[in-house]
Amino acid sequence: MEESLVAAMRSAVVLAEGARGLTSPNPPVGCVVLDAAGRRVGAGATQPPGGPHAEVVALADAGERARGGTAVVTLEPCAHYGRTPPCTDALIAAGVARVVYAVSDPNPVASGGARTLRGAGVVVEGGLLEDEVSKGPLRAWLHAVRHGRPHVTWKYAATFDGRVAAADGTSRWISSAVSRAEVHELRRRVDAIVVGTGTVLTDNPALTARANDGTPEPRQPLRVVVGHADLPDTAKVLDDSAGTLLARTHDPAEVLAALHARGIVDVLLEGGPTLAGAFTAAGLVDRVLLYLAPALLGAGPGALGASGVSTITEAHRLTVEEVTMSGPDVRVSAVPVRD
Amino acid sequence: MEESLVAAMRSAVVLAEGARGLTSPNPPVGCVVLDAAGRRVGAGATQPPGGPHAEVVALADAGERARGGTAVVTLEPCAHYGRTPPCTDALIAAGVARVVYAVSDPNPVASGGARTLRGAGVVVEGGLLEDEVSKGPLRAWLHAVRHGRPHVTWKYAATFDGRVAAADGTSRWISSAVSRAEVHELRRRVDAIVVGTGTVLTDNPALTARANDGTPEPRQPLRVVVGHADLPDTAKVLDDSAGTLLARTHDPAEVLAALHARGIVDVLLEGGPTLAGAFTAAGLVDRVLLYLAPALLGAGPGALGASGVSTITEAHRLTVEEVTMSGPDVRVSAVPVRD
Ligand SMILES: NC(=O)c1ccc[n+]([C@@H]2O[C@H](COP(=O)([O-])OP(=O)(O)OC[C@H]3O[C@@H](n4cnc5c(N)ncnc54)[C@H](OP(=O)(O)O)[C@@H]3O)[C@@H](O)[C@H]2O)c1
Ligand SMILES: NC(=O)c1ccc[n+]([C@@H]2O[C@H](COP(=O)([O-])OP(=O)(O)OC[C@H]3O[C@@H](n4cnc5c(N)ncnc54)[C@H](OP(=O)(O)O)[C@@H]3O)[C@@H](O)[C@H]2O)c1
Repeated sequence: MEESLVAAMRSAVVLAEGARGLTSPNPPVGCVVLDAAGRRVGAGATQPPGGPHAEVVALADAGERARGGTAVVTLEPCAHYGRTPPCTDALIAAGVARVVYAVSDPNPVASGGARTLRGAGVVVEGGLLEDEVSKGPLRAWLHAVRHGRPHVTWKYAATFDGRVAAADGTSRWISSAVSRAEVHELRRRVDAIVVGTGTVLTDNPALTARANDGTPEPRQPLRVVVGHADLPDTAKVLDDSAGTLLARTHDPAEVLAALHARGIVDVLLEGGPTLAGAFTAAGLVDRVLLYLAPALLGAGPGALGASGVSTITEAHRLTVEEVTMSGPDVRVSAVPVRD
Repeated sequence: MEESLVAAMRSAVVLAEGARGLTSPNPPVGCVVLDAAGRRVGAGATQPPGGPHAEVVALADAGERARGGTAVVTLEPCAHYGRTPPCTDALIAAGVARVVYAVSDPNPVASGGARTLRGAGVVVEGGLLEDEVSKGPLRAWLHAVRHGRPHVTWKYAATFDGRVAAADGTSRWISSAVSRAEVHELRRRVDAIVVGTGTVLTDNPALTARANDGTPEPRQPLRVVVGHADLPDTAKVLDDSAGTLLARTHDPAEVLAALHARGIVDVLLEGGPTLAGAFTAAGLVDRVLLYLAPALLGAGPGALGASGVSTITEAHRLTVEEVTMSGPDVRVSAVPVRD
C-alpha cells in the first residue's frame, strides 16, 4: 500500500516527539523511509548524543529497500561532521531518490543539507508540515538555536481565582490527578526542571518524572534549584534519583546561561511565584502552561509574584495557543506577545 | 415541507432565549406551532408580565391552521389562572392535536398542564431537548422556583495570575473588546446586576446594557449596589438610564431576598473581590463565568476576596461546564459542586 507523504511525515513527528528529552543538545528528529513504490520500509528517531541521527536509524531499518525511495524527515538533513558523519552522506550512499523535510536547518554549521543532496542528484522538498513540526517537537531546539539559550515553559496550577495555595500554605492537590500525570509526561520530555529554594523548602518535591504507578522513568531531567538558601539533607532533590544543580543566584539569565553551557535546550520552570515572577520580569518565559483548577479559595499566595508591572498598560501580554481539558482542569497554553 | 419536532424545538429555544430578561417572574418560553401536515404555521415567545404566554402568541400567529396540528413548547403549558388564563384552555380551544414540550413545570401551582390536556384528548409528550432547555433559557427560572431565590452568575475578568487590577488599581481593560461586548449581551438578558459600593467608588460604571455602538438597550436590568457607603451624586449608577436599588447590608442572602420579592429571577454579580467573596462564602453563587485574559501582572488585587476558606480541603470546588474563546480571552463557565 502506498503511503502518503503527509501520513509519513505525521509518523515522523510522532517519532520525534518520542525522542524529546533524550537528544539535547541535538534536535529530536523523526524519519520515515518509503521504498520506490511508496511503501514504508524504515523508521527511526534521533538517538542520544553520540548515537546515530534519525535518518541513519531509518536507513538502517530500511536496508536495500531504501534505494530509489523517499526519506521523509522532520528536519533538513545535516551536511556536516559533528560527533557523527553527515546524514546527507548516508542518504546518498543508500541511493535515496527523494528527501522530503519539514523544517529547514537554522543552524549555520549544519545547514546546506538540501544543497548537498541536490548536488548529488537527489530530489529535495522542504516545508511539509513545517508549522506542526516547528511548534511541536522542534520548538525548544529551534528556540535555543535562534536565541542562544534554552526554551522555558512556565508550568503552574492555579485556582479560578489565581491562587497556588490556601491561606495556611496547603496546596495538595490543587490540580487533578489527570493533570499531575500529564506533568510527569511533560517532565519526561524536558532536559531540566527549575524551581526556587522556596518550593523545595515548602513542598519538598522529588522533581522526577514518574510513570502512573510511581516508578521513575529511565531517564530523568536535571533538577535545578535557584537561590542562596541551604537545603536540608532531607530535601528529596538531593537524593540520587536524578542529577541536581544548585544555582546560587537570583538572576534568571545566569541560570539559563549555565544550562545552555551544559547543552540543555528545553526547560520546565516549576518554581513558585517568586521565581516565576523573576523569569517573567526578565522576559525569559517562552511559554505559559496553566492548569486552571476549578476551585475558589479567596485567600493564599497568587500564582505570580513581582514581575515588574505596576500599572495595567505594563502587563505582560500573552496569546493563547491552545485550550484543552485535562480531567476536570482547564489547560491553557499561551506565549508572550513580543513587540 | 414537514419540519422535524427537534428542529421546531430548537426554534422554540431560540425564541425563549430572546425573551430572557423580559419575562420575570414568569419563565421565558418559546413555542412553535406546526399544522396537521407538519409545516410551521406559528411561533411566539412569552411577553412581558401581564402579556400573553408563548403558546397564546404562537396560536394567534397560526390561527385556524393550528387545528389538528402540534404545539412545540419549551415548558409544559400552564393549567392555572394567573394574570392570564391557562394556556391549556387556549391549546384545547385552538384544536391542537398534540403538544410536545421540553421541561415539566416544577411549579406546584402551575403544574397539571399535561394532565389537563390529556383529559381533553390531546396527545402530550414531554422531555424533548429537556437538558438543553433546562440548562439554557429556563435555567435561572427553574433555579428560582426550586430554591425560592434568584439564580446568581458571578462574572469576572481576571489575568492568568488571577488579578482583577494592577498594583496601582488600574484595570481598563483587562478583558478584550469582544468579551466586553459579550458582557453587554449578558446584561441584556438578566433582571439585575449586583455590585458592591467598592466597585462603584473605584470604577464608576454605568452598569447598563448597551449595544456595540454604545446606545442603551431598550430594557435595562435593575442596578443593585450593596454596602453602606454613601455614593457621590456623580455616580453613574444614580442616573436615570436604569433603575437602581441601594441595598444597605453586607448579607448576600438579604440582598437576594429583596430581589426575589421584586420578582427578580436572574442576577449577574459583577461586584469586586469583596462582594464576590461574601456571596461565595454564603454558597450563593450558582454559576461562575470567568473571562481569563491572556496577561500577567504579578501584583494587584486577586479576583476573589475572603470566602471563608483557610485550608485547601475547604476550597469551594467547581465543575467546568463550558470553555470557549471570547476573542483573545478564554471564557470558562463553571458551577459549584454541591455535596
Ligand atoms: N501551584 C503551583 O504550580 C506551584 C508550583 C511551585 C510552587 N508552588 C507553591 O509556591 C510556594 C513557594 O513559593 P516561592 O515563591 O517561595 O517559591 P520559589 O519561587 O520556587 O522560590 C523562591 C526562592 O527562590 C530564590 N530566588 C531565586 N531567584 C530569585 C529572585 N530573582 N528573586 C527572589 N528570590 C529568588 C529565593 O530564595 P533564596 O533566599 O534561597 O535565595 C526565594 O525565596 C509554595 O507554597 C509552593 O507550594 C506552587
Ligand atoms: N475584573 C472584574 O471583573 C472586576 C469586577 C468588579 C470590580 N473589579 C475591581 O474590584 C475593585 C473593587 O473591589 P471591592 O472588593 O472594593 O468591590 P466590591 O466587592 O464591589 O465592593 C466592596 C464593598 O461592598 C460592601 N460590602 C457589601 N457586602 C459586603 C460584605 N459581605 N463584606 C464586606 N463588604 C461588603 C463594602 O462597602 P461598604 O463599606 O459600603 O459597606 C465593601 O467595601 C476595583 O478595583 C474594581 O475595578 C473588577
